[in-house]
Amino acid sequence: MTGAPDAASPWVRICEGRAHVGSVVEVRGWLDHHRSSGKVQFLVLRDGSGTMQCVAVRSDLPAEEWDALGALTQESSLIVRGSLRADARAPGGVEMGLQSVSVVSVAEAYPITPKEHGTDFLMDHRHLWLRSSRQHAILKIRAELIGALRDFMDAEGFLLVDSPIFTPSACEGTSTLFETEYFDEKAYLSQSGQLYQEAAALAFGRTYCFGPTFRAEKSKTRRHLIEFWMMEPEWAFATLEDVISLEERLLVSVVGRILERRAEELKIVGRDTTALERVQAPFARMHYSEAVERLHAAGSPFEWGGDFGAPDETTLSEQFSTPLFVTNYPAAVKAFYMEPDPADARLSLSCDCLAPEGYGEIIGGGQRMASLELLTRRIEEQGLPQEAFEWYKDLRRYGSVPHAGFGIGVERTLAWIAGLDHVRETIPFPRMLNRLKP
Amino acid sequence: MTGAPDAASPWVRICEGRAHVGSVVEVRGWLDHHRSSGKVQFLVLRDGSGTMQCVAVRSDLPAEEWDALGALTQESSLIVRGSLRADARAPGGVEMGLQSVSVVSVAEAYPITPKEHGTDFLMDHRHLWLRSSRQHAILKIRAELIGALRDFMDAEGFLLVDSPIFTPSACEGTSTLFETEYFDEKAYLSQSGQLYQEAAALAFGRTYCFGPTFRAEKSKTRRHLIEFWMMEPEWAFATLEDVISLEERLLVSVVGRILERRAEELKIVGRDTTALERVQAPFARMHYSEAVERLHAAGSPFEWGGDFGAPDETTLSEQFSTPLFVTNYPAAVKAFYMEPDPADARLSLSCDCLAPEGYGEIIGGGQRMASLELLTRRIEEQGLPQEAFEWYKDLRRYGSVPHAGFGIGVERTLAWIAGLDHVRETIPFPRMLNRLKP
Repeated sequence: MTGAPDAASPWVRICEGRAHVGSVVEVRGWLDHHRSSGKVQFLVLRDGSGTMQCVAVRSDLPAEEWDALGALTQESSLIVRGSLRADARAPGGVEMGLQSVSVVSVAEAYPITPKEHGTDFLMDHRHLWLRSSRQHAILKIRAELIGALRDFMDAEGFLLVDSPIFTPSACEGTSTLFETEYFDEKAYLSQSGQLYQEAAALAFGRTYCFGPTFRAEKSKTRRHLIEFWMMEPEWAFATLEDVISLEERLLVSVVGRILERRAEELKIVGRDTTALERVQAPFARMHYSEAVERLHAAGSPFEWGGDFGAPDETTLSEQFSTPLFVTNYPAAVKAFYMEPDPADARLSLSCDCLAPEGYGEIIGGGQRMASLELLTRRIEEQGLPQEAFEWYKDLRRYGSVPHAGFGIGVERTLAWIAGLDHVRETIPFPRMLNRLKP
Repeated sequence: MTGAPDAASPWVRICEGRAHVGSVVEVRGWLDHHRSSGKVQFLVLRDGSGTMQCVAVRSDLPAEEWDALGALTQESSLIVRGSLRADARAPGGVEMGLQSVSVVSVAEAYPITPKEHGTDFLMDHRHLWLRSSRQHAILKIRAELIGALRDFMDAEGFLLVDSPIFTPSACEGTSTLFETEYFDEKAYLSQSGQLYQEAAALAFGRTYCFGPTFRAEKSKTRRHLIEFWMMEPEWAFATLEDVISLEERLLVSVVGRILERRAEELKIVGRDTTALERVQAPFARMHYSEAVERLHAAGSPFEWGGDFGAPDETTLSEQFSTPLFVTNYPAAVKAFYMEPDPADARLSLSCDCLAPEGYGEIIGGGQRMASLELLTRRIEEQGLPQEAFEWYKDLRRYGSVPHAGFGIGVERTLAWIAGLDHVRETIPFPRMLNRLKP
């Protein structure tokens, strides 16, 4: 029934419809909904690139095609042919005058109906839920975000150097690591590509990796996924200040591009874009100690020296209309490889970036330890095996340099940009506690 | 010692040197090698973007800096300042007249020396080996290939929709799957994102995923990695012919871009680029049965009905100067979801693409089964649990359409384009049988 596209009526995607106004074309898609007024039927078709209204007039169609149209169920697949005409009222500005219809397949009764469904029901039907206009919009913004992140790093001269997913030793404790048998050894799924990016940056100057990351955390919050995507740039000869400036430019760039190219999708998800328009340099910035004072001023009993929890980050990031950099966290709450703060040995040259409107941390980064002696001591103090880190220590033996980098989480960044309550809709097939399907 | 860049002598990357000829600039990098002729020292510096010769004249430098230069070891890190001048003999066409040097760190005796090292030694030192000009060239071609693959798909209207890595059931047998505890369940690492791309394509029309893939194969060949990257496009309303045409355009596009943008790197790895220039449409193409006849003609005892092994693919792909499409493989050697060949029920609407010069398979793909009834029967025949595939069968219940797609392996494609004997150098940190480090 589908056949090859007819040269006289080429297969056109709905998003390209405007360029074919006045022509007879073919569109292939699924029935979103239809209604009839006796002699005229209106079919709204989705092809993945957009939706288009097709108008069938009884007198224009063979009787059997007309009758087939009336019996079509939601999500039935169709190939339609007809002439495109401009219509300002139509979605996409174009509608089709139907000349012929081939029904590819009539759908069974579609389980996702206009009535309210619970989250579990929708998640169980994620493979179908993806077809909704809201999920379309979110995942199109996601693809734009990922493209914008990559393009920015490429333009800044950072080379994509993929970090491995399988890592040999459970360096930082196994409690949140996924383990697997790797022939005669144990392997662990990477929680961060950073250590490998340090090796890459000392070879290539500026590098980044971009891949899936796995954390076996038993957290069931709106900010947690078990499997999520992260981009991690690393920059040789760069300081904490250099990467803060890079992060600022990165976020201004990607938010600007999404505002420009995904305005329609932001509208579909109901995002207040004025909040995104305020994402301009310079961002708000404060020292860890000032952040603690702000929490106290807000009535929190937070103790200096601890790490911020999600509610603390919400309190802080609600106070600003730009993203907020918090710098110089206590060394004890950051990874062992952070460069100490020369102004206060209790602190580290670290920086988290908290998204505004209460969204909290989307980037974590800092300057890495350059001294072999200090790094060796820190590994010792943490009770970690020196042997497992000999290759990493080599980076300090052979041409050590100041270097810095960060990791930006795709899903949390997207939740903020798209204004979503929960990260579960930010990834095509979310993996959470109790959620490994479909 | 590093300090902030001086406004009067900005930090410049070596690849940008030409634009700064006549200016005093700062370059930060590592010492590749140096030589002295008494009153003049020549330092060749690598900064990850290129290499540059710096010329130090004794009378231009303070005595202590001059002496420090003489004592520098390979891979020591430096910040140099000086004026750039054009010099056609210099790599990159620019050299620096040194005015000052800051030594950031003096390297210990570098383990990778000009003498020959065995592969195991180099692989054990992969974090340092990455600094060699050959590994630089290969990984820059890799990044270009990945960018070219993505840009092509984006331009063709395919949306990036990431498939999950964690999958719930060991659908196609566990022998080559990595397993992990996922809270109270078992999860398996994805070997292909395809089934999920089918769901995505029926939602978005044209989609692709691009991510790491894991196969626990005990194969120790030049074509096998345990962890490798794959791009998998899926296209709704497309036939086998449509995806063959798409694959052809994709390969012409990415090879052309690499020839254009990575000519220098192809030269460094010694690639015969005339072989790449022959990658033009139309590619060679043959039916599976013809391929079997060709093997027989070449003296092989290959039996009709089997799958090709690496030596068979080599025999076939050596006969052509373009990539070779082999179509219509027996259904029995392909996955259960392949659409049967309407011309011969023993065959499937499948196609592999073999790279020329004996490189063998780089793409596998085909048209997917559209019929719910037939798919249900095939799952039954394979002894697979229907329950695990209900979501996948839903794609045939609600708007089934002809659809097709393929998977292209990054590392095998790169091995061919860069002319490498073995895939182990095509990925920054290879994971192979007996190789999980560093």
